[in-house]
Amino acid sequence: MANLRQASLRHANLALVARTVLGADVPPSRADVAAVTSLTRSTVSRLVDDLVAGGVLEEVASVVGGPGRPGRPGTPLRASTGRFAALGLQIGVGHLAARLVDLSGAVLAERLVTTDLAGSRPAPTLRRLRSHAARVLAAAPDGCRVIGAGLALPGIVDATSGRLLSAPNLGWEDVDPGPALAEPLGDLPLQVGNEADLAAHAFASPAPGRHREPSDFVYLSGEVGIGGAVVVGGAVMTGRHGWAGEIGHVCVDPDGPACRCGSTGCLEQYAGRLAMLSAAGLDAATPSAELARRAHEGDEQACAAVRSAARALGIALSGVVNVLDIPTVVLGGHLAQVGDLLAPEVDVLLGRRVLSAHWVSPTVVVASDDPAPGATGAALLALQKVVTEPVRLTDA
Amino acid sequence: MANLRQASLRHANLALVARTVLGADVPPSRADVAAVTSLTRSTVSRLVDDLVAGGVLEEVASVVGGPGRPGRPGTPLRASTGRFAALGLQIGVGHLAARLVDLSGAVLAERLVTTDLAGSRPAPTLRRLRSHAARVLAAAPDGCRVIGAGLALPGIVDATSGRLLSAPNLGWEDVDPGPALAEPLGDLPLQVGNEADLAAHAFASPAPGRHREPSDFVYLSGEVGIGGAVVVGGAVMTGRHGWAGEIGHVCVDPDGPACRCGSTGCLEQYAGRLAMLSAAGLDAATPSAELARRAHEGDEQACAAVRSAARALGIALSGVVNVLDIPTVVLGGHLAQVGDLLAPEVDVLLGRRVLSAHWVSPTVVVASDDPAPGATGAALLALQKVVTEPVRLTDA
Repeated sequence: MANLRQASLRHANLALVARTVLGADVPPSRADVAAVTSLTRSTVSRLVDDLVAGGVLEEVASVVGGPGRPGRPGTPLRASTGRFAALGLQIGVGHLAARLVDLSGAVLAERLVTTDLAGSRPAPTLRRLRSHAARVLAAAPDGCRVIGAGLALPGIVDATSGRLLSAPNLGWEDVDPGPALAEPLGDLPLQVGNEADLAAHAFASPAPGRHREPSDFVYLSGEVGIGGAVVVGGAVMTGRHGWAGEIGHVCVDPDGPACRCGSTGCLEQYAGRLAMLSAAGLDAATPSAELARRAHEGDEQACAAVRSAARALGIALSGVVNVLDIPTVVLGGHLAQVGDLLAPEVDVLLGRRVLSAHWVSPTVVVASDDPAPGATGAALLALQKVVTEPVRLTDA
Repeated sequence: MANLRQASLRHANLALVARTVLGADVPPSRADVAAVTSLTRSTVSRLVDDLVAGGVLEEVASVVGGPGRPGRPGTPLRASTGRFAALGLQIGVGHLAARLVDLSGAVLAERLVTTDLAGSRPAPTLRRLRSHAARVLAAAPDGCRVIGAGLALPGIVDATSGRLLSAPNLGWEDVDPGPALAEPLGDLPLQVGNEADLAAHAFASPAPGRHREPSDFVYLSGEVGIGGAVVVGGAVMTGRHGWAGEIGHVCVDPDGPACRCGSTGCLEQYAGRLAMLSAAGLDAATPSAELARRAHEGDEQACAAVRSAARALGIALSGVVNVLDIPTVVLGGHLAQVGDLLAPEVDVLLGRRVLSAHWVSPTVVVASDDPAPGATGAALLALQKVVTEPVRLTDA
């Protein structure tokens, strides 16, 4: 009984220390961890030693003042690199991605293929993804333990069964991706999620060398459609069934163009990738980068497309901020490529349409232009096991 | 040390038992409480005895099978009536309300005055409310202990300072209502909140004889403006600054009429009380009940006003449901008076515009037509102290 209790206490404390170090803005020392957790310095030191030996944490070699002094209370700690990793997969309308991401957020191996998957058939697409997954897993460095896998999909996912219920922009209905990926994954658990939710999770996760992002924000993931996610306290709001965040189908103008969802005037009819290309007089196959180039060069039609998208984003996002009082919005996916042009105009509209803007000005943040942040988010989510089950991993 | 620990354990267990009984769908017995809480029957019985003696709970006299047998494991328990109460106040654009509400949700005393407060001055209005508050407090029955007070206001409130930052429909800016109410309240703590948030809290609270409401819903409070609240797991989402829920300013049509907020085409320009009266060809002073009567009798203009409001509600609420995946919406305030006419049309629009409606049909619920549910919510919120501080109250 006493041993059981001690084991469970050790588990809880290992998790607490791991969470504290992995979630810190700057690498904390053992002493910092003791101060934050209220554990004694000797307890923290013992737990850190176990987490370092188990490959979860590593000590940062000190840069000034001589060689690093491992085990010293003042030595900064951070997530280990290359020891624990997870496989992040993503099927987008315009790409396939497989990424091996480690605890520090570093990409250890990657396959990222640009390809048009609108109207594709699920089986051959999943076979292609399977081969990318296998190659990325085979490229894992020596001594690296892959502990999980995640798949980001551009549609409505049933989190319990892992089935994709519907991805209108792919043209897929009711697909179970698990069996097709079973072979390269072997025993690895696969978690399937919505790409915008997972991209938002990646954005909310602290990564080394990156400024810590706000913990409450509304994330937009622009592609053919526009996915979205609402993040509160660093966690993605899932809603009742895991289907929250469909900001792409917020109505901007009820008399606007018909949407594939059966409704009219949805945000994605103005700010989705195809809508913006069409408004700019460009072919649907044109890369978003080309639209961005033209808009930056002042091409009239491209600028008009950006303005129309910005107006629609301002209208839809002001409604979301009015309802949620989360005054930070993040433009991701193809929206990030013209983010510098969109942000100021969206900003003005939020200032005008958000009731509380008088007291707190909404902020527009532009995400990186990584085309597959959902793959990274899926891997980072799978890596949370290191924090939730540190004993099982470090004692293995 | 042991005594301190025992006292804190007793406190936690009293709170657990009180919460269990007050939150139950049907009055549970001591045995039911033991089953739910995993406490032993004898512990539960002791705690229940204390809560009954302290006036928090009471035993329901059994109706069939002979007289009630107090103290027996099978006797149903419920919130006491008339023993603990709180004062709920509300300033609406069309009324002033003061209510004494007990733990069972019963209204022990009330002053509800219909009055036009648009463009009113804060000081005389607060003096009127003070006099209502004093009369209602004086009407508290013998043996009833008033333990708190709350004030519901139709605007943006700073929860920390208790100041009203802005209530455009009253024409009030930066008002501190506390000092004006200090005299009748004496030592009673006063909590100030947004009326829609508090009405939603009342709607989420189980009350005797009422079917338990869903714990996740989007609440609309119709008045001159339209307030709103998002409730998740029975708790009102406050957002970053407590200003969430401004659904009345979600854009329905960017080319629509100008709103007092400085924006255009906001929901309240179609479904607010004044907008609906004007669309029905009625004077702004006409009671909503008259509009409802005409619409129910098939008056063409009144029906057109209802249809236009329903369309705007459908557009705005489908956006909210798409973003939040909370597929239950509640129509309160003046919207409840024509709720039976609005609900079917809103239902159709939600079915068409909500992306996940294919899997889960959104539901429209009509609230009661109580003009001051915020007052009840404010009182019920103040009464939560019975659950959070049962020792202090029952041992006093």
